[in-house]
Amino acid sequence: MVVCSIKPAMRTIVPFAVETPKTRLAPVLSPTERESFATAMLCDVLAALEAAGHTPTVVSTAPIADERVTSRAAIVIDDRDLTTAVNAQLAEDGHTLVVMADLPLATAGDIQRLVDSEADITIAPGLGGGTNALVVREPAFRVDYHGASYLDHREIARDVGASLETVDSFRLATDIDEPTDLVEVLVHGLETNRAPARLRAFGFELDDRDGRVDIVRDESVTTK
Amino acid sequence: MVVCSIKPAMRTIVPFAVETPKTRLAPVLSPTERESFATAMLCDVLAALEAAGHTPTVVSTAPIADERVTSRAAIVIDDRDLTTAVNAQLAEDGHTLVVMADLPLATAGDIQRLVDSEADITIAPGLGGGTNALVVREPAFRVDYHGASYLDHREIARDVGASLETVDSFRLATDIDEPTDLVEVLVHGLETNRAPARLRAFGFELDDRDGRVDIVRDESVTTK
Repeated sequence: MVVCSIKPAMRTIVPFAVETPKTRLAPVLSPTERESFATAMLCDVLAALEAAGHTPTVVSTAPIADERVTSRAAIVIDDRDLTTAVNAQLAEDGHTLVVMADLPLATAGDIQRLVDSEADITIAPGLGGGTNALVVREPAFRVDYHGASYLDHREIARDVGASLETVDSFRLATDIDEPTDLVEVLVHGLETNRAPARLRAFGFELDDRDGRVDIVRDESVTTK
Repeated sequence: MVVCSIKPAMRTIVPFAVETPKTRLAPVLSPTERESFATAMLCDVLAALEAAGHTPTVVSTAPIADERVTSRAAIVIDDRDLTTAVNAQLAEDGHTLVVMADLPLATAGDIQRLVDSEADITIAPGLGGGTNALVVREPAFRVDYHGASYLDHREIARDVGASLETVDSFRLATDIDEPTDLVEVLVHGLETNRAPARLRAFGFELDDRDGRVDIVRDESVTTK
């Protein structure tokens, strides 16, 4: 017998910085392109959350008018830094799923694996010691996204006596910050997703002529 | 009731290049250190395979005398390029697990997830479009590690009519090639593993003073 426990949808927040998004992509994308790409990634994350049965709220540093976002999520404005804004949400309700907006490889299945964990705190770590997605079921837990937040969150969980689990997911670990990260979007992005479609519209494609995989851009395509 | 199907151990190979290993770590590690670190990673991979119930064979470009390796694995010498050497192994037996030697975060559980897949071909992709671990159950399948091998392997599987699954694992996706990858070893390496212990012995520790996580080295520790 297989016991399937269908869990109720969890309160879900997606923090989003409207101003100067994805500055580390400046070497390869113009400000307008970065804004468009950041919104595309946000839409992909919202779609994955929706497919996993959750109704996300975007905690945004400024109002968002884009209908592709507003049709999928409630918007709450909080212009404070990421840690403060997320902790304000956790103070309202200690049972919350927090998913970063720059995870365009996230799928409903990955989100489900995260939510299926029974631990007080469940973390999907990001590349470079970060915390890309987080399920909080312990009201005393607070986040600290500065620095190696994965290690800090383990310590904070220990301090408040909360059990902790780590979800081993490449898709959730892959936050898109640097030009080299764009390779992952083109290789692993779902065909129906917006982020890989944006990159292709910008003229990017994979280039593995020298044996290592890189991105190359058709310079005739520019959107300044 | 939970039905556990204990699968028999699978023929398992780990390719290993003895000469000039991990050249892209040259900016931060001396040749002797790179050799020691590469062997430590290999030992960690062999330990994970052993813990998952497999008896690995190291397909090495040259003889290995190191007792920490020879106590854990049979050694087969093949000095040809990676693709040719692995394909020679697949020609001998089409049912094989192939795991790269530079995956020091691999655990028995990740390996088990890979082997549990029922597909003809199961791939754990690596960062940057690579193929870090691979279960082959289709005798006609051959590898091609050049370039975006994850995409190539999907295509090769399609060409031979083999079903394909992808295992979503951050631990298996993280191959250690570049200096920035060392962060992952220090953050996520198991406490009992050799690779993080080597890095700490070389004087490396995490540094997140400026908000992003990097590695910093105690320059009084040198092993030229």
